[in-house]
Amino acid sequence: MDYEKLSSKTAGKPILCKAAVSREPGEPLVIEEIMVAPPSPYEVRIRIICTSLCHSDIIFWKLKVPPACFPRILGHEAVGVVESVGENVDEVAEGDVVIPTFMSDCGECADCRSEKSNLCSKFPFRVHPWMPRYDASRFTDLKGEALYHFLFVSSFSEYTVVDITHVVKIDPAIPPNRACLFGCCVSTGVGAACKTANVEAGSTVAIFGLGSIGLAVAKGARLCGAKRIIGVDINPEKFEIGKKFGVTEFINSKDCGNKSLSQVIIEMTGGGADYCFECVGLGSLVQEAYASSRKGWGKTIVMGVDKPGAQLNFSSFDVLHSGKVLTGSLFGGIKAKSDLPVLIKRYLDKELQLDEFVTHEVKFEDINKAFELLIEGKCIRCVIWMDK
Amino acid sequence: MDYEKLSSKTAGKPILCKAAVSREPGEPLVIEEIMVAPPSPYEVRIRIICTSLCHSDIIFWKLKVPPACFPRILGHEAVGVVESVGENVDEVAEGDVVIPTFMSDCGECADCRSEKSNLCSKFPFRVHPWMPRYDASRFTDLKGEALYHFLFVSSFSEYTVVDITHVVKIDPAIPPNRACLFGCCVSTGVGAACKTANVEAGSTVAIFGLGSIGLAVAKGARLCGAKRIIGVDINPEKFEIGKKFGVTEFINSKDCGNKSLSQVIIEMTGGGADYCFECVGLGSLVQEAYASSRKGWGKTIVMGVDKPGAQLNFSSFDVLHSGKVLTGSLFGGIKAKSDLPVLIKRYLDKELQLDEFVTHEVKFEDINKAFELLIEGKCIRCVIWMDK
Repeated sequence: MDYEKLSSKTAGKPILCKAAVSREPGEPLVIEEIMVAPPSPYEVRIRIICTSLCHSDIIFWKLKVPPACFPRILGHEAVGVVESVGENVDEVAEGDVVIPTFMSDCGECADCRSEKSNLCSKFPFRVHPWMPRYDASRFTDLKGEALYHFLFVSSFSEYTVVDITHVVKIDPAIPPNRACLFGCCVSTGVGAACKTANVEAGSTVAIFGLGSIGLAVAKGARLCGAKRIIGVDINPEKFEIGKKFGVTEFINSKDCGNKSLSQVIIEMTGGGADYCFECVGLGSLVQEAYASSRKGWGKTIVMGVDKPGAQLNFSSFDVLHSGKVLTGSLFGGIKAKSDLPVLIKRYLDKELQLDEFVTHEVKFEDINKAFELLIEGKCIRCVIWMDK
Repeated sequence: MDYEKLSSKTAGKPILCKAAVSREPGEPLVIEEIMVAPPSPYEVRIRIICTSLCHSDIIFWKLKVPPACFPRILGHEAVGVVESVGENVDEVAEGDVVIPTFMSDCGECADCRSEKSNLCSKFPFRVHPWMPRYDASRFTDLKGEALYHFLFVSSFSEYTVVDITHVVKIDPAIPPNRACLFGCCVSTGVGAACKTANVEAGSTVAIFGLGSIGLAVAKGARLCGAKRIIGVDINPEKFEIGKKFGVTEFINSKDCGNKSLSQVIIEMTGGGADYCFECVGLGSLVQEAYASSRKGWGKTIVMGVDKPGAQLNFSSFDVLHSGKVLTGSLFGGIKAKSDLPVLIKRYLDKELQLDEFVTHEVKFEDINKAFELLIEGKCIRCVIWMDK
């Protein structure tokens, strides 16, 4: 069985288990024994089944300045089984299969009650080193030192504690090494296409950057029935990869000759793409994406994380006269508790294929291998199994 | 009768009539006799009944550098009666009541065929001194010198010639001194609220700049059922005026103390306005409008015309993480031939009240008085009657 239900004899007690601790910036994670405290009120303790590695983990693993902090338990794309719940938790129970999400869905604030927002106001998205509700850690190492949390998930541990607002119960029919992808990559990319942009059937999409998020956007665009999906990258190998995700045409942005990237796209599309997704995190590329979008209705969706303080500049004339739309998308605009199960159903119904994402799988003890693979650009997603 | 139908004996011949010619930047218009050529193929010659004065006329009247040019016939907010039509025109006929529009609606290009765009690709919006199709003038003065057109309308003349793609046939039940307002101000403002923004009932709107366009946005927002309409201006008298147009609250942006305007709006609204309209044309104010809009779903609509080359700067982090939307609106997103008659019907059905706009009315010979009134800020719209 994929999600084995263990009779929990650990409820209410600290659990001694293994975690991969990031102790120094850029240094290999150290697999060590840690103590995971029982869940406080409104919290859930989860036994992680598997977790996948995302670029954001690498960014915060390498980063030497705040909001980086060490020692920390990274990881935010995972699936697990509820081991026990704290007081006031009745939404999930021991044995439930759940995805911990870095975005909260409290169900109470104006944003969570609105169909239009996925940006919970009660527990807003932030790169915070603690639990969202209590500003405390549930992890301690064997010297008694607290270990920092990451994105309210910290899945590089056999057990983690997550606030109930960050937990989504899912259909256990989905295999763990596909379920974990919904914790970030798939929801972010597919959601950006299907929810934030609401790509129309028959339309033309341009994706700037064919990393895992860009490839997930391609999946989403295809799901929406986009006719042309133009992938842009500086790595020519990405075209063959992209094809498996739905990319129909490719531009190597280094090979535009004396034309700008937007000129090339405008010529290819006879006026510009209907939807442009920036998945790299470069202000200049956002501007090219905006310029590449069709006047009258073109939408540009910013998804890449730029450096702190980075600015986006647009001509006032263009914004007024083009009728174009600029927006951003965090977690694909997906509302964790209501939209995620629907997206998973689309996977179970075979509308959404995810096999192409998982290029590698490793045991937990080989987690540093996953880091190497992603850094070398050799994998899209490497799934890390906690207990295989 | 408001729109008297004269039996046209002038068809096919040049017409000698009066026009108010702008001969020098900032100098009073000169009412003189001019010759108006018969309409070429795809053109319509219109007898103007009345025209109203818009700030854009004043900007191009004062401007000393291109795209200003002299001598020119200004005016772009008008209503008239078709005097005669050129070859290949069967959409309107002699005697039809029409509004000449500065935005084309060719009905053939991808934009005109789409529900999503009002930016005709065949005859795009531009500040052009000629007819859109032939790059020629239909006006000559008595010395035989060509007079420049303005925005494809040039309504400060008893007769003008307009391309059929810029002509909308309307219900003659609407009085001329209300119909003319649809040529720019009312369509732009009401359209921005009802079409570009698609303001939801019960929502909160902030309008930056309570000139005629801002006041028309208020009208539109009210028409859509907005609950709170916050007007922002530096002139405190604008609050009393704004109330007549639906403004429910007022902020004097000079009186924000040590708070920014966006801080004041965020506090007033408990998080930001659902829709923000910038109607002044200042990059810094667009940025305040964006900052004033509600995270998660706030829309900022740029309507003001900034200086050429002006830039808008946004934090990349904010665009990505806020879920806010930025767009621009030209002519309120209104498609001239399909949407304008619907908007006029809403006036005729008494859903949309326009009386408050017309604060002054003058005879054609007093057109320079209209300029004085608008420059002095004493009027919202001054209607200029050609034959009263």
